[in-house]
Amino acid sequence: MRVVAALGGNALSPAGGTGSVEEMREALASTGKALAALVASGVSLVLTHGNGPQVGRILLQQELASAAVPPMPMDVCGAESQGQLGYLIAQSLDNALRALKVDARVLCLVTQVVVNGRDPAFRRPSKPVGPGYDRPTAQRIAHESGHVFAIQPGGSWRRVVASPLPVRFVEDAPLRALVDAGHVVVAAGGGGVPVVEYRGRLRGVEAVIDKDRTAALLAQAVGADRLLILTEVSKVQVGFGTPEARALDELTVSEARRLLAAGEFPSGSMGPKVEACADFAESGGTAVIAALSDAAAAARGEAGTAVVAG
Amino acid sequence: MRVVAALGGNALSPAGGTGSVEEMREALASTGKALAALVASGVSLVLTHGNGPQVGRILLQQELASAAVPPMPMDVCGAESQGQLGYLIAQSLDNALRALKVDARVLCLVTQVVVNGRDPAFRRPSKPVGPGYDRPTAQRIAHESGHVFAIQPGGSWRRVVASPLPVRFVEDAPLRALVDAGHVVVAAGGGGVPVVEYRGRLRGVEAVIDKDRTAALLAQAVGADRLLILTEVSKVQVGFGTPEARALDELTVSEARRLLAAGEFPSGSMGPKVEACADFAESGGTAVIAALSDAAAAARGEAGTAVVAG
Repeated sequence: MRVVAALGGNALSPAGGTGSVEEMREALASTGKALAALVASGVSLVLTHGNGPQVGRILLQQELASAAVPPMPMDVCGAESQGQLGYLIAQSLDNALRALKVDARVLCLVTQVVVNGRDPAFRRPSKPVGPGYDRPTAQRIAHESGHVFAIQPGGSWRRVVASPLPVRFVEDAPLRALVDAGHVVVAAGGGGVPVVEYRGRLRGVEAVIDKDRTAALLAQAVGADRLLILTEVSKVQVGFGTPEARALDELTVSEARRLLAAGEFPSGSMGPKVEACADFAESGGTAVIAALSDAAAAARGEAGTAVVAG
Repeated sequence: MRVVAALGGNALSPAGGTGSVEEMREALASTGKALAALVASGVSLVLTHGNGPQVGRILLQQELASAAVPPMPMDVCGAESQGQLGYLIAQSLDNALRALKVDARVLCLVTQVVVNGRDPAFRRPSKPVGPGYDRPTAQRIAHESGHVFAIQPGGSWRRVVASPLPVRFVEDAPLRALVDAGHVVVAAGGGGVPVVEYRGRLRGVEAVIDKDRTAALLAQAVGADRLLILTEVSKVQVGFGTPEARALDELTVSEARRLLAAGEFPSGSMGPKVEACADFAESGGTAVIAALSDAAAAARGEAGTAVVAG
């Protein structure tokens, strides 16, 4: 069975932590164990991951060191975060596989994802990236850089960028070649480095592709049987926070679309995950939203919330 | 013909520049053209590259932003530089190949290189990395971090780390799978992320592997016919800076070893290049040191200084 699994931020470093490498290595050691169990069960695994907090720190470093080092644009920072996280994830998972005497090796491919330059998302930047600032600082940076800022819940100002839909992987063929050869591949970290194609040339753009949408496209690109969106909750809930709250074992695509349209899932968290799952289920696969610790069970259909055709 | 080419720092961004992404993209556009000509001539290309100035800037960013963002260790910074440079190199070369209507695609593999934890290099750190400091600042950082500093020609103090020999690639099998599948692969940037293997586990170390030595190992690992060390000079010279200065068309391994032992080539620049070429020539291939602009001619044996068995 071929599985694409998407890791959220907390699988990479603990929420509310400092973002030190020690914290990341510790979080990744336990993530590596959960994923190694999945690979040991005979699954051919392709892994993708978020990068919000990590690329946020890289963007903050660009800003704080800008008097001495020219800041890199977002596409390059995204590629740096793929190197950083891909290396740490591959090493942790590889060590966990060695501990289980599983022979598969792990590697990380720097991945560019083509987006449509006419995607309407470019006309309304909405995805917050990087650190929060007070209003005068945000205004100064906006003035110097042309970046767009928006006020966030809590009152801080953060840069916002477009979040276009992923269209295809530049590294489509090598990705498939690596998976077919039996390797565990870490790809399209942070949703992939967004590029537009214009007159046959690729060019990076300052945007962020939702990592769950990219995961669904990745699952299609490598012909996965199952898409696992791994998160902190064991199942999707409806009526979250109300007396009628109910955890779901299964959700059909049409139910998922109806609940999405009714605003049942928040756009910043569960919404894109359910949307990504519905997209993949519609293309004929099974998609599961599950807790990271349940990854192996979720691949067998014994944990999480499955989104299925219908 | 299969060729491993190693790019020096100036192929990636101009010496004495600010290191901005605009400078890098401009340098890489012309590098991409030279390499695309090589691929268009029918060569199967594996590319590796230095990262000195780029990882130096990433290390400086760690230092300058350290009050807000926990600095990443050298192995992680090296992986970040592989993401940064691998992305920019792959995109530039890919665009140059598209312009020539060549079908091969380019991708970057994050690459770990195993070194021996008992390599004597670890007992005498000598490779300068990162920015230069005045003495009090170097002493303060040394006190806080345990880093070792050494005075440099010119009087500044820089951190020095070990430069162990590369032993093998962690991503050996996928590397070969990708090359065999006809892809242009960018691998082992900056000499590779150095890791040691201890009781079956990999762990990153704070060291720098010489990129030319890694290039020679890479050429052996992928079964290359030819190793190209691309630099700014069109040929190796003996008696450099003297009235007897002479450019060489060819050098046997035994001549190369003799000249190296006689201190003919400076250890910081031409020395490791000649050594890497001698290693590869000894293993049965042909190694050429040539100017980047002569890459295609050098692959045909019509430019540069060839190091051959004998």
